Amino acid sequence: MLRAGVDLGGTKIQVAIVDADGNVVGQCRIPTPQDQGPQGVIDAMVGAVRSALADAGASESDLTGVGVGSPGQIDHASGTVSHAGNLPDWLGTVEVAGPMRQALGVPIELANDVQVGVMAESQLGAGRPYDSMLGIFCGTGVGGGIVIHDELWLGRGAAGEVGHMVVEPDGAPCPCGRRGCLEAYAGRAAMEIKARKLVKKGHKTSLFHIMKKKERTRLSSGVWAKALEQDDDMAVGLVDRAVWALGLAAASAVNLLDVEAVVIGGGLGCRLGTPFADRIRDAMIPHLILPEKTPQVLSAALGDLGGAMGAALRVEHTTPPPGPLGEVADADA
Amino acid sequence: MLRAGVDLGGTKIQVAIVDADGNVVGQCRIPTPQDQGPQGVIDAMVGAVRSALADAGASESDLTGVGVGSPGQIDHASGTVSHAGNLPDWLGTVEVAGPMRQALGVPIELANDVQVGVMAESQLGAGRPYDSMLGIFCGTGVGGGIVIHDELWLGRGAAGEVGHMVVEPDGAPCPCGRRGCLEAYAGRAAMEIKARKLVKKGHKTSLFHIMKKKERTRLSSGVWAKALEQDDDMAVGLVDRAVWALGLAAASAVNLLDVEAVVIGGGLGCRLGTPFADRIRDAMIPHLILPEKTPQVLSAALGDLGGAMGAALRVEHTTPPPGPLGEVADADA
Repeated sequence: MLRAGVDLGGTKIQVAIVDADGNVVGQCRIPTPQDQGPQGVIDAMVGAVRSALADAGASESDLTGVGVGSPGQIDHASGTVSHAGNLPDWLGTVEVAGPMRQALGVPIELANDVQVGVMAESQLGAGRPYDSMLGIFCGTGVGGGIVIHDELWLGRGAAGEVGHMVVEPDGAPCPCGRRGCLEAYAGRAAMEIKARKLVKKGHKTSLFHIMKKKERTRLSSGVWAKALEQDDDMAVGLVDRAVWALGLAAASAVNLLDVEAVVIGGGLGCRLGTPFADRIRDAMIPHLILPEKTPQVLSAALGDLGGAMGAALRVEHTTPPPGPLGEVADADA
Repeated sequence: MLRAGVDLGGTKIQVAIVDADGNVVGQCRIPTPQDQGPQGVIDAMVGAVRSALADAGASESDLTGVGVGSPGQIDHASGTVSHAGNLPDWLGTVEVAGPMRQALGVPIELANDVQVGVMAESQLGAGRPYDSMLGIFCGTGVGGGIVIHDELWLGRGAAGEVGHMVVEPDGAPCPCGRRGCLEAYAGRAAMEIKARKLVKKGHKTSLFHIMKKKERTRLSSGVWAKALEQDDDMAVGLVDRAVWALGLAAASAVNLLDVEAVVIGGGLGCRLGTPFADRIRDAMIPHLILPEKTPQVLSAALGDLGGAMGAALRVEHTTPPPGPLGEVADADA
């Protein structure tokens, strides 16, 4: 039996088909439709699940359920997603689980996109050997998650907001409206705003040149990586600043939680990889109360597939329902 | 059957005798002997346990065990305490459990002093209604503990070092040798160093006058409380600064952990009480990602007895051993 996981993002929909052992046996990646509203996004997710099943050489009858990792606020009971600002025209509250269940005929599990990404790294990725870890996911914003005894700690539902730990009182403006949060230094959106301000002040950079060359409208993770390759002063300076802030926040979190591992993921985190994780570790050590017990600081191992794999993990392992009289279909099973 | 808890501090030894329902039925508080080395401290603890039993109208035969909350590094297997800088002449590693067991004839459980204080607040004090809490204990230093699902989260053994979360990069010097830790602003030792520096620079304060009048050699919690009562400018300013730092660190911790409650304890925290906790809550709110879900911020409810009560909780509930043939002594029980 197979599970599908959908990683729903503002620019792309990634689907993974996962077997009982956690192997990815099929996948599909499509752009998120930008001009057909929430219904278009839901239709696209259903289509992508079918394509991924076909990629796995399987059909809908092999599917036990679909997990969807989504931005915004999730309501499990009603199967809705609200306040998903990154999704096109996603105003108010949108029913997601109902329409998808109707189309695919299996249970749909909604979950927070960052939380499923962190769980995937814990169960199948870089965090696998560890009982406790902190995930720090740097993308447009900075999200995260805490794994304790191999389970995600959700608190009252919102734990893991490592991006809004304060690293500098009255520091840089954060997209959340506050100041000095980690995300104000290490989130792509804030880093881009800072880069544009510096350009206005007359600073030189190849960042926006690379962006245009790549036919992007935003400074994507690929743009930052390319600019670093070219030793662009502004890119190097802003990534140094992100590393500084990540080191500070990670150290405070480790002093508080004493986890075994810190896993750096997200679009930017995965793109910059192990050298980035190593630099964050080095920035963290001076602030650790027990530097001799520095935890592992690792780059996320599942890359772009982590979110979809984590979403698939949300589907309960279920045995096929028994026959009409309660007989088990296959006595050899 | 009764359990004894010992809160071992640099200046005092507090013992509580706790019954099966968690009620304190006897207690004893004596100064920590300063001139007889570790052996004198151990003898004093044994004597204080006996006095507290007498206070409870009980004897050693009613005792199932003794928990000891100690500063320094605890080794459970060997029953030793090392690196307890606050204890008189406590150099190297000292056997504590062995000699106490020999004197009292019951099992001895050693534990970290702050951790037992946090657990006492969680199980019997201000944190009792909550499944998750963060304890922040302000005394000479700033310690803490995280309770998740009613259990202390220890990480790899050192979780809860909220005092060494960084609140200001390159900020005030901390007794730990780093800069900008919470403890550098909200620990009594650091606050006293800052006050002495300000006096050297010519600032006026009644803090040291009050200290002498109270026949103290240090700025104790009582000295700070008295100076605040008198609206002493320096005391008000330094406590404002502590509140600011506590609000920042607590907000970062709550954004990360989303606990239901924050409990402010320790000598200084208990002395300044609910108004202090309220001010920390107000200082925290501007930095919370979900201010509408501000957790409860409460003053520790057990006061000076919390440490001893928490230490007693470390003793396993045990039924009295059965008679020689396995008979239960009292069939009515």
